[in-house]
Amino acid sequence: MTRFSIGVDLGGTNLRIAAVEETGTLIEKVTLGTKTSLGRDHVLNDMCDTIRHLATKYQATASLAGIGIGVPGIIDMETGMVRESPNLPGWVDYPVRSEIEKRLGTRVILENDANVAALGEKWLGAARDLPDMAMLTLGTGVGGGLVLGGRVWHGMNGMAGEFGHTTVEPEGSQCKCGSRGCLEQYASATAIVRMAREAIASGEAPALSRAANSDAEFSAKTLYNMAIQGDDDARKIFHRVGRALGIVLSGMVNALNLPMYVIGGGVSSAWEVFAPSIFEELRQRSMVYAATAPSSPAGGGSGASAMVEPGPGGKTIITRALLGSDAGLYGAARLPVVEER
Amino acid sequence: MTRFSIGVDLGGTNLRIAAVEETGTLIEKVTLGTKTSLGRDHVLNDMCDTIRHLATKYQATASLAGIGIGVPGIIDMETGMVRESPNLPGWVDYPVRSEIEKRLGTRVILENDANVAALGEKWLGAARDLPDMAMLTLGTGVGGGLVLGGRVWHGMNGMAGEFGHTTVEPEGSQCKCGSRGCLEQYASATAIVRMAREAIASGEAPALSRAANSDAEFSAKTLYNMAIQGDDDARKIFHRVGRALGIVLSGMVNALNLPMYVIGGGVSSAWEVFAPSIFEELRQRSMVYAATAPSSPAGGGSGASAMVEPGPGGKTIITRALLGSDAGLYGAARLPVVEER
Repeated sequence: MTRFSIGVDLGGTNLRIAAVEETGTLIEKVTLGTKTSLGRDHVLNDMCDTIRHLATKYQATASLAGIGIGVPGIIDMETGMVRESPNLPGWVDYPVRSEIEKRLGTRVILENDANVAALGEKWLGAARDLPDMAMLTLGTGVGGGLVLGGRVWHGMNGMAGEFGHTTVEPEGSQCKCGSRGCLEQYASATAIVRMAREAIASGEAPALSRAANSDAEFSAKTLYNMAIQGDDDARKIFHRVGRALGIVLSGMVNALNLPMYVIGGGVSSAWEVFAPSIFEELRQRSMVYAATAPSSPAGGGSGASAMVEPGPGGKTIITRALLGSDAGLYGAARLPVVEER
Repeated sequence: MTRFSIGVDLGGTNLRIAAVEETGTLIEKVTLGTKTSLGRDHVLNDMCDTIRHLATKYQATASLAGIGIGVPGIIDMETGMVRESPNLPGWVDYPVRSEIEKRLGTRVILENDANVAALGEKWLGAARDLPDMAMLTLGTGVGGGLVLGGRVWHGMNGMAGEFGHTTVEPEGSQCKCGSRGCLEQYASATAIVRMAREAIASGEAPALSRAANSDAEFSAKTLYNMAIQGDDDARKIFHRVGRALGIVLSGMVNALNLPMYVIGGGVSSAWEVFAPSIFEELRQRSMVYAATAPSSPAGGGSGASAMVEPGPGGKTIITRALLGSDAGLYGAARLPVVEER
């Protein structure tokens, strides 16, 4: 009998739930809005209704391996409580896992959303043939996930993988985590717009200023479009994105010597404009990278670097994510399988 | 029959070789000078003579589990070659492991010296009851080691654990690794003296200037003595040491969420003058530390923080190493046991 699992990607905007076969084949995907304005209980009920619906529908022909849920926040794995969640503030210090288990009458696995995205890219994406990898998810914030031996590395309380809050500039921009100069302050969509507004305020970026005035939704995407059209001020901002990523990745490569580091999230669409700066920093800052770099590091947008054969005597690959916004959904569906071992 | 192994700590100054029982009891320790001036072959012969002597002497009453050797440099685990070694330049790109194996007629395990120090502290030192830990060794340079599940985390080529070359100040002091502003540039004995000389050159540290003129061996130890006697300029230097360590440890805590981080090496004797700055940075820069800090982090020199019970729902402990210069010797002796699994 085929085995399947149910994965949930609980985002601040969308609530997505999928039934996925153990082989990685998608059976059915349901996308709902996350109605945070109607309150936590409403969202929990929506989620549990859909999980029950999918479970019932497919349990006739396949066996359910389990339910995995990706949540945007720091999760205490011991208690199943959300410790911090900028996008779901009402969920903090609330026993999310046991509330869901009570509603469904079965065990569920809760996991940080960036960790499940990493697990998804490891299972079916850029790192599918590798046991160890790390991922940075560049979105509104910067999330991180570490997979060692095919499983999410949780650390002692389930809080590992917070690469987005590695210090890049000790006296840099104030971060909402309480620190200064975190990676998130240079490589998130929010940071890209902030850096553009700072450049505008300095009076030294007239083209950015015109764009901000004419575009009501002046966003990271606007700046990416300007950068690929050759605007120097926009390019400078993506150089800072790549430099910050390169500094943090250099430390990760030196510390962990993994075969692959995957860059995902919405901002990774701008790969071609920031990736060259990543590789520039890596070559200078990481002796481990210098000793293990592929002969022609992919600075372009083709993602061809992922084709280099890793393994014994292997190379350090830095590459784009392949699954887009589905990484978290697939990773959540993978949780029950890797965690049961 | 008792099992024992032979551990070797090959340093730039001393070559130390010990027979250690599997229980951690020292049987015999031999200390020789590392006669680097007489050439690599001379040192290898000294080492192999002593290993053979100890093996023969104790194999009558105990069984030899194996031989582990800690080497100061980056080692390619695949080939057993030393890739980089500032203290043993003549050993780079030389097949160290196979040459030793040829001389001894048996398999040996080669490992980076900071990795074996971490393994030693995990086996018999500060982290003896924990499966996972990281260690920073503050000496002439800054070495690092990561132990996960009781074994050294090698990464793909055996080059993991190079925490000493994490960027602290992107535009900081030039490092011999090719990067700028590495931890090693702020937290090594060499860096402490450099920072003092910089302060003297600026004309703003008259007491340091007097000390440098009157003390032919103006060293990190001189500066430590001045700091504990209350000299402000010396204290400022150790504040910078602690701050740099705190920045890097914050990133490690956020990324790995380990129960313990151990600070060893000669500079760790100055723990009481730099540790308060470590904890100051950690509380500000690491949300994972903020969520898992012991109620009263040990900023003092007692090492009492190591007494806090780790484990499920556990705390993040930052503490001094306990084994001093023996950490590497014990760790090397432990290698054959943990690597045979």
